[in-house]
Amino acid sequence: MGSDSDLPVMSQCLEALEKFGLPYEVQILSAHRLPDETADFARRAVERGFAVVIAGAGGAAHLAGVIAALTPLPVIAVPLGGSGLGGIDALYAMVQMPRGIPVATVAVDGAYNAGILAAKIIGATDPEVRGRVAEFKQELAQKVSEKNLRLQEMGHKKYLEESR
Amino acid sequence: MGSDSDLPVMSQCLEALEKFGLPYEVQILSAHRLPDETADFARRAVERGFAVVIAGAGGAAHLAGVIAALTPLPVIAVPLGGSGLGGIDALYAMVQMPRGIPVATVAVDGAYNAGILAAKIIGATDPEVRGRVAEFKQELAQKVSEKNLRLQEMGHKKYLEESR
Amino acid sequence: MGSDSDLPVMSQCLEALEKFGLPYEVQILSAHRLPDETADFARRAVERGFAVVIAGAGGAAHLAGVIAALTPLPVIAVPLGGSGLGGIDALYAMVQMPRGIPVATVAVDGAYNAGILAAKIIGATDPEVRGRVAEFKQELAQKVSEKNLRLQEMGHKKYLEESR
Amino acid sequence: MGSDSDLPVMSQCLEALEKFGLPYEVQILSAHRLPDETADFARRAVERGFAVVIAGAGGAAHLAGVIAALTPLPVIAVPLGGSGLGGIDALYAMVQMPRGIPVATVAVDGAYNAGILAAKIIGATDPEVRGRVAEFKQELAQKVSEKNLRLQEMGHKKYLEESR
Amino acid sequence: MGSDSDLPVMSQCLEALEKFGLPYEVQILSAHRLPDETADFARRAVERGFAVVIAGAGGAAHLAGVIAALTPLPVIAVPLGGSGLGGIDALYAMVQMPRGIPVATVAVDGAYNAGILAAKIIGATDPEVRGRVAEFKQELAQKVSEKNLRLQEMGHKKYLEESR
Amino acid sequence: MGSDSDLPVMSQCLEALEKFGLPYEVQILSAHRLPDETADFARRAVERGFAVVIAGAGGAAHLAGVIAALTPLPVIAVPLGGSGLGGIDALYAMVQMPRGIPVATVAVDGAYNAGILAAKIIGATDPEVRGRVAEFKQELAQKVSEKNLRLQEMGHKKYLEESR
Amino acid sequence: MGSDSDLPVMSQCLEALEKFGLPYEVQILSAHRLPDETADFARRAVERGFAVVIAGAGGAAHLAGVIAALTPLPVIAVPLGGSGLGGIDALYAMVQMPRGIPVATVAVDGAYNAGILAAKIIGATDPEVRGRVAEFKQELAQKVSEKNLRLQEMGHKKYLEESR
Amino acid sequence: MGSDSDLPVMSQCLEALEKFGLPYEVQILSAHRLPDETADFARRAVERGFAVVIAGAGGAAHLAGVIAALTPLPVIAVPLGGSGLGGIDALYAMVQMPRGIPVATVAVDGAYNAGILAAKIIGATDPEVRGRVAEFKQELAQKVSEKNLRLQEMGHKKYLEESR
Repeated sequence: MGSDSDLPVMSQCLEALEKFGLPYEVQILSAHRLPDETADFARRAVERGFAVVIAGAGGAAHLAGVIAALTPLPVIAVPLGGSGLGGIDALYAMVQMPRGIPVATVAVDGAYNAGILAAKIIGATDPEVRGRVAEFKQELAQKVSEKNLRLQEMGHKKYLEESR
Repeated sequence: MGSDSDLPVMSQCLEALEKFGLPYEVQILSAHRLPDETADFARRAVERGFAVVIAGAGGAAHLAGVIAALTPLPVIAVPLGGSGLGGIDALYAMVQMPRGIPVATVAVDGAYNAGILAAKIIGATDPEVRGRVAEFKQELAQKVSEKNLRLQEMGHKKYLEESR
Repeated sequence: MGSDSDLPVMSQCLEALEKFGLPYEVQILSAHRLPDETADFARRAVERGFAVVIAGAGGAAHLAGVIAALTPLPVIAVPLGGSGLGGIDALYAMVQMPRGIPVATVAVDGAYNAGILAAKIIGATDPEVRGRVAEFKQELAQKVSEKNLRLQEMGHKKYLEESR
Repeated sequence: MGSDSDLPVMSQCLEALEKFGLPYEVQILSAHRLPDETADFARRAVERGFAVVIAGAGGAAHLAGVIAALTPLPVIAVPLGGSGLGGIDALYAMVQMPRGIPVATVAVDGAYNAGILAAKIIGATDPEVRGRVAEFKQELAQKVSEKNLRLQEMGHKKYLEESR
Repeated sequence: MGSDSDLPVMSQCLEALEKFGLPYEVQILSAHRLPDETADFARRAVERGFAVVIAGAGGAAHLAGVIAALTPLPVIAVPLGGSGLGGIDALYAMVQMPRGIPVATVAVDGAYNAGILAAKIIGATDPEVRGRVAEFKQELAQKVSEKNLRLQEMGHKKYLEESR
Repeated sequence: MGSDSDLPVMSQCLEALEKFGLPYEVQILSAHRLPDETADFARRAVERGFAVVIAGAGGAAHLAGVIAALTPLPVIAVPLGGSGLGGIDALYAMVQMPRGIPVATVAVDGAYNAGILAAKIIGATDPEVRGRVAEFKQELAQKVSEKNLRLQEMGHKKYLEESR
Repeated sequence: MGSDSDLPVMSQCLEALEKFGLPYEVQILSAHRLPDETADFARRAVERGFAVVIAGAGGAAHLAGVIAALTPLPVIAVPLGGSGLGGIDALYAMVQMPRGIPVATVAVDGAYNAGILAAKIIGATDPEVRGRVAEFKQELAQKVSEKNLRLQEMGHKKYLEESR
Repeated sequence: MGSDSDLPVMSQCLEALEKFGLPYEVQILSAHRLPDETADFARRAVERGFAVVIAGAGGAAHLAGVIAALTPLPVIAVPLGGSGLGGIDALYAMVQMPRGIPVATVAVDGAYNAGILAAKIIGATDPEVRGRVAEFKQELAQKVSEKNLRLQEMGHKKYLEESR
């Protein structure tokens, strides 16, 4: 991530990775303030054994693109919404990458989803991880189903009261 | 893709996949007009041996999200810009997926990049494909370098004239 | 609705439906997290006797479109504004439906209006419900008239003080 | 519609209505240039036997809202994109109606869909019209299916060539 | 204004009118909820002796346009920002009026400026009111000058502390 | 206006002024390229007998605001849409004036309406000009009525053909 | 700056200038409320020995452009985000300057960066100031490095807790 | 510049630099496709004797920021508008730089102005270049004055005809 102020949002990503049992490393790098270390990290990502890089940044968010320029690994971009333009600046600065150098962009502040997407990417070729993603999706469905059941049983007025 | 009118843009994606030697299947499906077939395709994608799904659509572009809801495979979303709102509608309708169901969104009309991203995703765990991505990046660099060299040699005025 | 976190806004819709004496059923479904149940709900909506479906969702809001794809009934879409992009994402993801599959979109967070629109839709062919809509409109006018009268009587300074 | 320059887009709506066998009347009215006639039309719409009103306008598009203020009938709003702001102005001016007076907004330039939505609204309580909507949806699916089949048979390169 | 919830902002307009010694009348009208009274007000504005109408509304703000349709008097539009889209919806719904029916739009929540603009409009042909506007402008300049002088004297650090 | 490239749009304004029999003077001034002459024009506008100033500019459109800063006369702002951002830049740069210095903004490229608004402003206190505005509004209504009548007589299909 | 309410943000600019040992003068001027003094300041900026002018303003932010029109010195524009449109209005009103009169725009509320940019501009030809900018960049990198080191040592969970 | 397709716009920048007699070097570099060469160029810019760097790029335009990260020299950013989002993506990706690393952003496609801004930056400390900027501004004023004079002499109708 580009700054330690991004950690509260980006730590949701780590939570998701832990859920899928995927090992990770977390770094504060910055395309603008620490360009050499960022480039060095990107260049060595393959040899250090990473499979996916997740980059979260706000404003003129260059981190994902700068890393994608230097590694053949897939890079997931998380536009962060703390800036004055509500994250639209980071979204455009990440998703609109030029021909040849894609990044995989998720929603504004979508750090948790970035972790899931990393698992899906590993799972593209690894059936075990894919299985964990499939289970996760069933759990998700289960939780919504249970909420719906509870809503049917107690009615929306009581449900609203209790969830306050 | 959601309509055969998307084919001129989406065929760039196939071009990229061919470049990386990745086999593919191309379908006109539609979350809205062919919902059952789309759901069926998504549900059977794993057993049919796909590793990645790429979905291109415009307007209220639901195709990527609807498929992502039904498969643990990574889904790449290509927002298409033919609609009245210049692709911002499709971008928002794709990238802003809810917690739990990410898609990997690329630039508006970024079909070519979607193909590269698919290769990067396969390459996350497959060193050979990753190698091809690395080579592709070198070719890209080479081409820009050559153009720059040519620009240095002939000067920008002559370069401009010739490229007209 | 797509999540129980949407209930505080969406319950305004139920309030409106009760005002018009229209029976309803409320479900937490999700185009992304509960796709099969959502599809099942949509497919059976006619035979279960519904006349109108109201779908509220935020972000890349697919719920209305996914249901509209599977039922000939009119679907009212309520874009919810809780996401990082202030509801513009949900608005675009709902209103920009492709040729052939319309949804009837109301304002961002316009759940109350969705209930009224449902009554107007029933009232298109049912004179009694239409009459209730006409009465409701008179009540609305009455209330604004009374406020205006009160403003004329007490002057805007006193009115402001009292409404604080 | 607000101007005869809207007729090329709005006539798609009439095409859709004819497809569903629904009788209609088409008027050039204008909330701004013909306010009395517009108000008169809206007030008499019920007694003249209309079930649905469809209003298409561009820019600061008030036509749908002005009519909705004066009739209990459902009003479908078609934001037209000919203005300098690409239809976003008309979209916001239509969809963001205040509490109490909803309109059913479709996509920018979505006149065809407005016709289908009118049929869905009639079909909410009229099984025959609903049946025609269901058939229409099957035809839509059929057409996409056929295109897909053709694409599978001839491959995307040949398909592209032929569709040029 | 369209609702009594607009009064806190719109009362700034009255403050400005009082500053210029201009008599006024304040009404809660609504293009959507009180269409007949609004139309009646607009039609009778000339004969009742008004010179300028100021209309403040939010969301799909039709009030200014609906009044402008029915009176030859200049109408000043104040887009109000309380809605979910931050006032951009009201701005577009007001400023993008069609050829033939202009309104004079001021900034989002610019009610105070609407009052000044009314004075400028009266002052276009009335030298005394114009003189008051000129004096007001001098006062404005005076106030900024004094603040600047104070800033020069105490330095920005002390100035900041004191203004907290 | 800020540049002679604005003349094709801004001349519509002069057309409207001529329609209302209002004398005018047209100048190419520029807040940025001709700041002294612009300031001089603004400062002398009252003594030279102008009642209203109309300023059309594109991009970071400062012309209206710069003139409004230097004259008590009402200034009408016409945001011009030729720039890369489709006129939204000019609209924001004009309409969002600070407290104390309003301008009366019309639609993007709304030069014709600026001329009508000028007539409405003169007509605020001049019954003869107001009468001409009222007549103009009747003519407008008449024209739309005639088009509508023609549409009723020939049907929309024939009308469409003939207007092509 | 255009108003003393801008001082809390704009004082960050002064902080940066002090860091680089650059002398400065701070003024509350206003293109709209104090046009003569602003023009006078701009015209005399060269003879008074200034090298760079930094202008911060919000809304229809004309201050930078108005000064740039009257001085050959570089003008840095700081769009301020306090207005209703979140600073996008000020950004567009500043950055979209017409051909011939550029300003150097920084991020919304980017006052601190404006100070650094001023130092970079002086440093374009002054090696000592450029040296200070280079040192500043090293300090920045150092700080991010230290944070990263600390994150590696304590892990992200503990880091998060401590930074709360 | 990021690609040779940017040359038609960016060559306007060179035209401006030539006008001010400033020597320059033009390179096709790319933050994404040629990251090492770009970094190398940025790191060596000071020792190679450059005073200012001008970077033009479109889409997720990282070129200016990536260079600014590696040099203490001022970097001028030209957002290019050829992409699907009309240059707003490039504008946000350039102007919204994080605290510590500013770039000086000009208008979308404002390459000519970037050249002038470079001259202003050199002129901040070099009186001769500043003198040339002052002369340029007088020429600009002269040209607009002449156009205005011509407009006064021939009237706007004839002027329009001749400029067609």
